[in-house]
Amino acid sequence: MTPTIPNTSVQLRSLVRRGELELSLVDVPTPVPGPDEVLVRIDAAPINPSDLGLLFGAADMATATHGGSAERPVVTARIPDAAMPAMAGRLDESMPVGNEGAGTVVAAGASPAAQGLLGKTVAVLGGAMYAQYRAVPLDQCLRLPDDATSAEGASSFVNPLTALGMVETMKREGHTALVHTAAASNLGQMLQRICLKDGIGLVNIVRKPEQVALLKGMGAVHVCDASASTFIDDLTEALIATGATLAFDATGGGPLAGQILGCMETAINRSAKVYSRYGSTTHKQVYLYGGLDTRPTEFRRNFGMTWGMGGWLLFPFLQKIGPAAAQALKDRVAAELRTTFASRYAGELTLAETLSADAIGRYNQRATGEKFLIRPNGR
Amino acid sequence: MTPTIPNTSVQLRSLVRRGELELSLVDVPTPVPGPDEVLVRIDAAPINPSDLGLLFGAADMATATHGGSAERPVVTARIPDAAMPAMAGRLDESMPVGNEGAGTVVAAGASPAAQGLLGKTVAVLGGAMYAQYRAVPLDQCLRLPDDATSAEGASSFVNPLTALGMVETMKREGHTALVHTAAASNLGQMLQRICLKDGIGLVNIVRKPEQVALLKGMGAVHVCDASASTFIDDLTEALIATGATLAFDATGGGPLAGQILGCMETAINRSAKVYSRYGSTTHKQVYLYGGLDTRPTEFRRNFGMTWGMGGWLLFPFLQKIGPAAAQALKDRVAAELRTTFASRYAGELTLAETLSADAIGRYNQRATGEKFLIRPNGR
Repeated sequence: MTPTIPNTSVQLRSLVRRGELELSLVDVPTPVPGPDEVLVRIDAAPINPSDLGLLFGAADMATATHGGSAERPVVTARIPDAAMPAMAGRLDESMPVGNEGAGTVVAAGASPAAQGLLGKTVAVLGGAMYAQYRAVPLDQCLRLPDDATSAEGASSFVNPLTALGMVETMKREGHTALVHTAAASNLGQMLQRICLKDGIGLVNIVRKPEQVALLKGMGAVHVCDASASTFIDDLTEALIATGATLAFDATGGGPLAGQILGCMETAINRSAKVYSRYGSTTHKQVYLYGGLDTRPTEFRRNFGMTWGMGGWLLFPFLQKIGPAAAQALKDRVAAELRTTFASRYAGELTLAETLSADAIGRYNQRATGEKFLIRPNGR
Repeated sequence: MTPTIPNTSVQLRSLVRRGELELSLVDVPTPVPGPDEVLVRIDAAPINPSDLGLLFGAADMATATHGGSAERPVVTARIPDAAMPAMAGRLDESMPVGNEGAGTVVAAGASPAAQGLLGKTVAVLGGAMYAQYRAVPLDQCLRLPDDATSAEGASSFVNPLTALGMVETMKREGHTALVHTAAASNLGQMLQRICLKDGIGLVNIVRKPEQVALLKGMGAVHVCDASASTFIDDLTEALIATGATLAFDATGGGPLAGQILGCMETAINRSAKVYSRYGSTTHKQVYLYGGLDTRPTEFRRNFGMTWGMGGWLLFPFLQKIGPAAAQALKDRVAAELRTTFASRYAGELTLAETLSADAIGRYNQRATGEKFLIRPNGR
């Protein structure tokens, strides 16, 4: 039975004009898949922290006003002048949003591989997923187990591959244990499950006592609460215990990345025999992979001269390790979809509800654990 | 004619006690060179910015008090409690100071290579150079041209090899032009001479209009004054003109390193065709090799995700490139000692004068260009 495919369908758009952001739902022609593409009816697409940057740009969402109709809401918000230069590249261009999702293949290109996916549930990657339909190249699809739902598979790419990418980076750069911040997040919980399964030392940094309890309840050994007065000492002891010299920081701003490097240096020097004013010769690295803390990044250079800080992004990383290594990571995601890589959601939203003041207020908090699922074809 | 070598000689020492720094001159047994060492009578040793960290530690030199005698002055200064943890590795250990110097070989070990240096003028590296005599392994000596003076050779290692190391790093990491801060420094002038000679694009960042004039007078093409209201635009234009994606920052603290990354990103995006909220995919790197600005390092992450910041140190770099490549750099220093690598000094100091309030007040300003030469055996 071939499902009926409408000629036009709905897509969420983000448009930056001079000084103003506009979010809306637009009708677009339903795409026709090329020979090596499939047309996916998107049934579920998560709102990841990495989606919020494109969605809201540099707009001050406290200034948001809500217009349009219930079915076609329009949100506008002011963008501060100082932030406009960073928006120059997307000015006046109406942009679709949504890194990943899952759904049913309802049409397929001519190639046998594409035809083979007809009627199957797939996870997909590639942007523009906050839409009812999306044509996607085969290599951006992950066929889900036959009994998996779209909701179960919606977050198969970004968080699972990011967590696996962190562990892979650790191995490739010669570290033996990891530090992770905003560690109570959906991603952080996945990373903890991977590390428990693989026997890798992990130092979790969280911001609230209840997040300590959550991770300890999962079996986490090292959980440091950055809001505790003993945080610096706690972190240092955890670094001594694990020997971690690599951190992935989702917060990006504020003093945290520098504090991690400082505590790593203290931990290393605890066993140092000779003083060097240039610090230890052990390389200490923090990758900033997110920007949950929008303050400037600030650090005192109290960790010697053998250190690095830098950006880390999943897609360049996957390109660097090559298709075979990337496929090995994807295979692991499919195999452990309901265990290691299971996601939980705080709520589900239609496309229209995604633009409501109430929903934006919740998912734009960037609170760890509060992850939402968009249902573009209805709940 | 064998010079008379005293049994004991004078050495400058820096001692960190709990809450207090003490600088003094002490008598030490004049060292006896091992088989592959030479004994050098140190006639000239520069005060490099890289020496000040070991010399003053974390002491607040505004609290300095001066005692002792004219010949054996003693300086004490308070160390804030908050800074004591970083001093733990050197607590209660009286440390000699001085990375490099030059002088005459007055005794030599048994090996023919050591004997071959007797009576020659050599530049030496290895710490403890603020002393009248120093035994140094042969591989830390650089034989100077026969007509070179100790003063001419005193700064043969740190600044010349650092400047050459920056250019070498640029080539090895795939960049084609450089940015340098505190660029009017002795080191910065050397780097400008190297870049002019080798045809390498260099963006100089300075802090005062007169430093612009100094570098322009040397033939510098790009000099940006960080104190000018047009600094960000000036820097961006210079980065567009040179294509520089690598910077070496001597200041370390404050917003400068982040501003450089931000301007690099703007320069790259000036020619970008497609917007990506993750920024350009061109790797942008800043190495912090000094800490002239003692404020925390602070940056807004307005330069995408493809960037790195890190420490850079000469000695690990030389180890990484290996002895043959390092020797090639040293050979170039000897060949261009009076041209590319010529140093100028703002004044000369005996060891006792080095501990005077007046002298400390001048060389601890960390002002670019104000470099002093210590004469341990008298002026």
